[in-house]
Amino acid sequence: MATMQDKQAWSGRFNEPVAELVKRYTASVDFDQRLALFDIRGSLAHAQMLAACSIISVQDLNDIQRGLAQIEKEIADGDFVWQLDLEDVHLNIEKRLTALVGDAGKRLHTGRSRNDQVATDIRLYLRSAIDDIIALLKNLQKALLDLAQHHTHTIMPGFTHLQVAQPVSFAHHLMAYFEMCQRDVERFGDARRRVNRLPLGSAALAGTSYPIKREMVAELLGFESVCQNSLDAVSDRDFAIEFTAAAALTMTHLSRLSEELILWMSPRFGFIDIADRFCTGSSIMPQKKNPDVPELVRGKTGRVNGHLVALLTLMKGQPLAYNKDNQEDKEPLFDTVDTLTQTLRIYADMMSGITVKQEAMRSAALQGYATATDLADYLVKKGLPFRDAHEAVALAVRHAEQKGRDLAELKLDELQQFSNLIADDIYGVLTLEGSLAARNHTGGTAPQQVEAAIARARKLL
Amino acid sequence: MATMQDKQAWSGRFNEPVAELVKRYTASVDFDQRLALFDIRGSLAHAQMLAACSIISVQDLNDIQRGLAQIEKEIADGDFVWQLDLEDVHLNIEKRLTALVGDAGKRLHTGRSRNDQVATDIRLYLRSAIDDIIALLKNLQKALLDLAQHHTHTIMPGFTHLQVAQPVSFAHHLMAYFEMCQRDVERFGDARRRVNRLPLGSAALAGTSYPIKREMVAELLGFESVCQNSLDAVSDRDFAIEFTAAAALTMTHLSRLSEELILWMSPRFGFIDIADRFCTGSSIMPQKKNPDVPELVRGKTGRVNGHLVALLTLMKGQPLAYNKDNQEDKEPLFDTVDTLTQTLRIYADMMSGITVKQEAMRSAALQGYATATDLADYLVKKGLPFRDAHEAVALAVRHAEQKGRDLAELKLDELQQFSNLIADDIYGVLTLEGSLAARNHTGGTAPQQVEAAIARARKLL
Amino acid sequence: MATMQDKQAWSGRFNEPVAELVKRYTASVDFDQRLALFDIRGSLAHAQMLAACSIISVQDLNDIQRGLAQIEKEIADGDFVWQLDLEDVHLNIEKRLTALVGDAGKRLHTGRSRNDQVATDIRLYLRSAIDDIIALLKNLQKALLDLAQHHTHTIMPGFTHLQVAQPVSFAHHLMAYFEMCQRDVERFGDARRRVNRLPLGSAALAGTSYPIKREMVAELLGFESVCQNSLDAVSDRDFAIEFTAAAALTMTHLSRLSEELILWMSPRFGFIDIADRFCTGSSIMPQKKNPDVPELVRGKTGRVNGHLVALLTLMKGQPLAYNKDNQEDKEPLFDTVDTLTQTLRIYADMMSGITVKQEAMRSAALQGYATATDLADYLVKKGLPFRDAHEAVALAVRHAEQKGRDLAELKLDELQQFSNLIADDIYGVLTLEGSLAARNHTGGTAPQQVEAAIARARKLL
Amino acid sequence: MATMQDKQAWSGRFNEPVAELVKRYTASVDFDQRLALFDIRGSLAHAQMLAACSIISVQDLNDIQRGLAQIEKEIADGDFVWQLDLEDVHLNIEKRLTALVGDAGKRLHTGRSRNDQVATDIRLYLRSAIDDIIALLKNLQKALLDLAQHHTHTIMPGFTHLQVAQPVSFAHHLMAYFEMCQRDVERFGDARRRVNRLPLGSAALAGTSYPIKREMVAELLGFESVCQNSLDAVSDRDFAIEFTAAAALTMTHLSRLSEELILWMSPRFGFIDIADRFCTGSSIMPQKKNPDVPELVRGKTGRVNGHLVALLTLMKGQPLAYNKDNQEDKEPLFDTVDTLTQTLRIYADMMSGITVKQEAMRSAALQGYATATDLADYLVKKGLPFRDAHEAVALAVRHAEQKGRDLAELKLDELQQFSNLIADDIYGVLTLEGSLAARNHTGGTAPQQVEAAIARARKLL
Repeated sequence: MATMQDKQAWSGRFNEPVAELVKRYTASVDFDQRLALFDIRGSLAHAQMLAACSIISVQDLNDIQRGLAQIEKEIADGDFVWQLDLEDVHLNIEKRLTALVGDAGKRLHTGRSRNDQVATDIRLYLRSAIDDIIALLKNLQKALLDLAQHHTHTIMPGFTHLQVAQPVSFAHHLMAYFEMCQRDVERFGDARRRVNRLPLGSAALAGTSYPIKREMVAELLGFESVCQNSLDAVSDRDFAIEFTAAAALTMTHLSRLSEELILWMSPRFGFIDIADRFCTGSSIMPQKKNPDVPELVRGKTGRVNGHLVALLTLMKGQPLAYNKDNQEDKEPLFDTVDTLTQTLRIYADMMSGITVKQEAMRSAALQGYATATDLADYLVKKGLPFRDAHEAVALAVRHAEQKGRDLAELKLDELQQFSNLIADDIYGVLTLEGSLAARNHTGGTAPQQVEAAIARARKLL
Repeated sequence: MATMQDKQAWSGRFNEPVAELVKRYTASVDFDQRLALFDIRGSLAHAQMLAACSIISVQDLNDIQRGLAQIEKEIADGDFVWQLDLEDVHLNIEKRLTALVGDAGKRLHTGRSRNDQVATDIRLYLRSAIDDIIALLKNLQKALLDLAQHHTHTIMPGFTHLQVAQPVSFAHHLMAYFEMCQRDVERFGDARRRVNRLPLGSAALAGTSYPIKREMVAELLGFESVCQNSLDAVSDRDFAIEFTAAAALTMTHLSRLSEELILWMSPRFGFIDIADRFCTGSSIMPQKKNPDVPELVRGKTGRVNGHLVALLTLMKGQPLAYNKDNQEDKEPLFDTVDTLTQTLRIYADMMSGITVKQEAMRSAALQGYATATDLADYLVKKGLPFRDAHEAVALAVRHAEQKGRDLAELKLDELQQFSNLIADDIYGVLTLEGSLAARNHTGGTAPQQVEAAIARARKLL
Repeated sequence: MATMQDKQAWSGRFNEPVAELVKRYTASVDFDQRLALFDIRGSLAHAQMLAACSIISVQDLNDIQRGLAQIEKEIADGDFVWQLDLEDVHLNIEKRLTALVGDAGKRLHTGRSRNDQVATDIRLYLRSAIDDIIALLKNLQKALLDLAQHHTHTIMPGFTHLQVAQPVSFAHHLMAYFEMCQRDVERFGDARRRVNRLPLGSAALAGTSYPIKREMVAELLGFESVCQNSLDAVSDRDFAIEFTAAAALTMTHLSRLSEELILWMSPRFGFIDIADRFCTGSSIMPQKKNPDVPELVRGKTGRVNGHLVALLTLMKGQPLAYNKDNQEDKEPLFDTVDTLTQTLRIYADMMSGITVKQEAMRSAALQGYATATDLADYLVKKGLPFRDAHEAVALAVRHAEQKGRDLAELKLDELQQFSNLIADDIYGVLTLEGSLAARNHTGGTAPQQVEAAIARARKLL
Repeated sequence: MATMQDKQAWSGRFNEPVAELVKRYTASVDFDQRLALFDIRGSLAHAQMLAACSIISVQDLNDIQRGLAQIEKEIADGDFVWQLDLEDVHLNIEKRLTALVGDAGKRLHTGRSRNDQVATDIRLYLRSAIDDIIALLKNLQKALLDLAQHHTHTIMPGFTHLQVAQPVSFAHHLMAYFEMCQRDVERFGDARRRVNRLPLGSAALAGTSYPIKREMVAELLGFESVCQNSLDAVSDRDFAIEFTAAAALTMTHLSRLSEELILWMSPRFGFIDIADRFCTGSSIMPQKKNPDVPELVRGKTGRVNGHLVALLTLMKGQPLAYNKDNQEDKEPLFDTVDTLTQTLRIYADMMSGITVKQEAMRSAALQGYATATDLADYLVKKGLPFRDAHEAVALAVRHAEQKGRDLAELKLDELQQFSNLIADDIYGVLTLEGSLAARNHTGGTAPQQVEAAIARARKLL
């Protein structure tokens, strides 16, 4: 029995110690020790409030502050000994604190429970992670802008269905990803507001019988408000799900860009090269240079989607309030943060290692009748209803395809077979540059518009 | 050939008609006809802008307005004939318009593509759906408040791990769900901002060569801004994913409440009864009355989680810009809207059909040593460090359990075996009412606090 | 009350009728009527057994048989009136039966419950669907073989990381998909064994007090065995999940082939063309011909993954035995069957509509140093350890790339700079044909091996 | 440059070394080192075949065998130094081998690639994991049988919709889980057949130009056959997905049992107690004893579902052959194996730590009209059609409920109000024991049947 009491903070009522297998199965210290500094920060604010409310003495507060400062140092120095027997980050730290400062350590847990403590720790952790991620997203946006800046006149084929659709500039294409990132930034900002509320003071589930001041703790820790219902506060994991959903969207965006980088670097496209330092080779094929980074990013999208499913499944049908199931929130959340953070970091770097092969882009844009829509628009401007113009051009394309030529390579009288509205001013319309410049409105690919978009974007960052 | 041109708006360049099987596989009119009124609204704004920019004549505009008004009426009256051969809602309406008003109908598609048209339609649809959902969430919140109002003094066992933890009021328990719904309302509001941006004018992918005014269309349709990049605008489905993620969270909340209603209505709990009109029976067991509604809600959570996965998988690795894959966004999105809307509607109703069995709740709270924490807190207030108090009470509980009695049923000298700090004022502390009233801070279960929370909540609605 | 009894088979104990909203929310007849013929088949076998065990009379059996025959005809003729008020397919049919044949109809439900009845119906339905799917998979395999047959000498670049790796034949590439389909066939066959067990006789959950013979029913319906535990039998949905998981894998395979078809048909590759009848055009861009079918297939993969998640989420944490949640199994399952069936059907067709552009494939294989590994192998055969050979060739490729030439275009003395083991027999090794022919072992791309693989595959079908 | 060549096996063609960030992002050695012993086993078989085919010398083989033996020892002793710079388990071992035995080490990679090597390693690993899991499932089945054995006459309420349905024995209830496990065993066995095929010899993607004998390697490693297509073999991850789907089903089964254990241990049920060594307490509430293990198991279900989604998403739309995305298969797979293995191990243990509270079960079965169906069956046996009998009993239940009594507590004349077919032999029918014994057919809950089921099950193990 004595041994048991040495080990578990809650074992007084138990008749036998926890089985070894169970201890390993239920302990979280292996992965939740990454919350240590947030746990300490939370404990400091809690203790300060307890003292301010005369629930503990000033001496106790001083002892706790001294002890926690030492523990923080021990952790930073790698000297802290984490014990599986002590289950989790919270009890490891509390036990060490009591060893260092005695009874004050045993008083720290007054008016709180691990249920509200861990919820507070994760929120502090996640708030900090979100701030990092927003900064990294902005870095990536900046890298996109820096590359786009030079390519407002670089023409490539815009694809739909991976078939040539209309000419666009490479800058315009890159700016689509700027927009996606911008929504990501917004979304993480919105999620942050819901993360940044204080559960501490909810204790186990019902609040506590001590005269605590939750608003003071909130202020000390930079929370915008306190959670309004203790049962909800200890069992809510919305923030983890909402964050992971936002992360899944960001990864989805990056998976799309990755797919494009992989395509563009394939010799079949040959639109870009990625610097050697972002690529790896083959153990068997000496010629290979593989775009590993975008491939891994594409693959890691599944990983984050999976974490989202894990968290949603976890919370489905859980009765109030805290259940042990919730411990399973941490690993998916931590891995999502790591995956997203590392991916964004490497992506921003990699964008600066891209070499653009303008000639290949241009020559690809010249294949596939990219300016057929311009011909239809030309006919409309001469009075033909759009549907009739579309039909006429479709027949012209069929003719050109059978001849193996581009529209601009047809002679005027050939073109006129399809509509007598066509005159020799048509050849200007059929150029890539003409097509590009014509799309001159907010969101269009005309160089003037894309330059304005880049300028607006710079201002936004 | 003639036949082909009759059928498909784009078939001029094709040498053979689409196979029947393919037509059925690729057509969307079966499910996208629910967008019809939004499609018409979008077309009206587009036409108005085209006329204002002199791209079509005022006469054309009048014809289009007349024709679309008639089509809207035909649809409302169930007289409109949807044709699979015309693929989708857009071409069905355009074809009918041309039949009704001639060339003006053929001019409507000037300066737009189905790519930006469908994106606009879905956003209009989803914006409207979100407004409905927010209203339904508020109805449910109101139903929760109405029930909570009467139960701030109704005591039930607060559970953690489905073991008795501490007494809480039924009102406090219900208010936890109010908080969840409140986050849902916020989240849908945030998603709405990102839905409410106009893609129209992006045309196929690059913008259009006509001198259009996208801002005018945005204003006519109540969009807050225009999408800033045409490639992004036609291929972005973030809004569908973000909405479905928010819906999955709402369903998760309702799955938790459902689990509790099912438990509470089980004879093992017997905390509530649900009115007959929300239950069904068994075809074989004559005595059965089953809580079908909460069970179905719990089950439908999986359905919405599934749609979220469908949409995320859909978008993974798609290169820009529009790909046909995107047509698969509609059914998951529509079914998510339907599921959530119906579920919220029925839930608000059902809350008013709940009978609370206060005696059963109270008697359950009296089992399981629900006030043991209060005893520990009592010792702390008399000077014992919390950890030592916890240990002493744990031993007292072990003793009481072996005797088969509650803590309040132990005699004073029995209690004093575990700490000589215990005096006869302890028995007040050990009552359910004493425990409840003691948790008297923001978020705590004390009646005074819960009443204040209800009042704040009323104001919020 | 009278009205209530008219409507619900179970309403005797209820004090108020089910609310309209609830009726719609809980009814399944809209989607489960597709089980009708299986329900009738199951009822016939059940009645035959009841009569054989003297639980009902021979006259009752005759009446039931006559009545169900008529109902089957009414359904086939579209004359059957499905009523939402009667909840589901089972009660709709039973009610009609009683209307047709009187008391015998009321006796049909003896010794069974809807819980075991619906489980039986779904298993009969799914067994039939699996048989269809296996046949469709074999059709697709046959289509792959028919195409492969002509292309054992058609050389294309084998890609890894979408970079040119080594030459392969188009036939070899197609045969990879044959293998995937073959595993799918196996997997559905395995799942079928677990589907093909009879739950009927489990009644509501505990079995029935009538002296039934479940084995007889199993034999009549072609089930391989009877479910061994009644609680399990009525609540088991493993078969739906296992089937959907197998379907998700098949769709994943098809998503990969679809990705390739889309790439190959892009002008950047230009390896194939897909017949016009499998493609559609654009409402705005007259030149477009889009590979809609493979794009939709790729998109529909998400749909089936989503259904799998829905079903897994549905079953998580459900206590025994039947809960209403389980009604949510049908729509995901049915949609999975439909999606897979339609997709396989259209795919087999489409494979015969593919035109192979051998020249484009060949010319792509000549770019990217596809035979570099052959050079390394050549050196190994002359005695160099593989790692050293790899290094030497890597340097040769770097040199060739800087010169903008292929390895085969380097002169002998240039090549010899990298290893003096190289002699003029090297140029044969560096040809595409030489490389292909050299991979001459089971599973290799040598024409001889691929022909053998095709022959084995034909035998398998 | 020299440095580069020291580091990467493939860097000859590269102009700059891999960036540090990229190295960390792309390396897998942190997690794939768990494949080390399988990698060595595969290399030994490969080398043996190379020597048998005279591709390497007997001396080389001896060197390789000696070197790998030493490496195996170093790993077992914890002396092996894993280097991130060497990317993965394969190159770490190969590099060390070359350091130990020189050129023979450089020859080991002849005729293979990491693409087929890693596929072989994972299959060996997974085959072994499946064997462990099947054994653990059987252990759990045995634990279920051992507990069931004593409870064929222990009566509890069988629930549907968590409402009392009919009496069942606790043994019968446990045996439902035996059946689920049995399907799991079958399913893993089926998956094993598809795992147990040899990819080695497929080399990078197309096979190899050496005269290898794949069948010999297969036999040495215990594979049942060789993969028939090299492109498929290096890019196939079906086995990982199929395994994870089977694991998700097993976890789903355990989540259901966990839900029940949690309910049963809640004081509201009080059907069982779980030994202290499988439970933990609360840091704040001294009285708490929480069923942590089943709660965690329930939560971990989401984790495995998530991994399944990760893997399916990973493979969606991947073109042939190997892409770097595939490296992301390992972590979800490994964690699935670990989760399932640990969970099964602890579950089998925990079943033996369950105390059954027969009185509580019995008294719960006496509430809720559990024998109402028996009364209906009684009436049917006296000649009433089932539907009419159901209706009569429903009215009797309504009457009994209003009186607050059980059916067996109604007097004969009260019962006869509902049907004059009722005689005084009815009271035997309405007992729990009578109801149980009556369900006497395969799969039914009668003690005789359940004993037979247990006997059959014992034989099966």
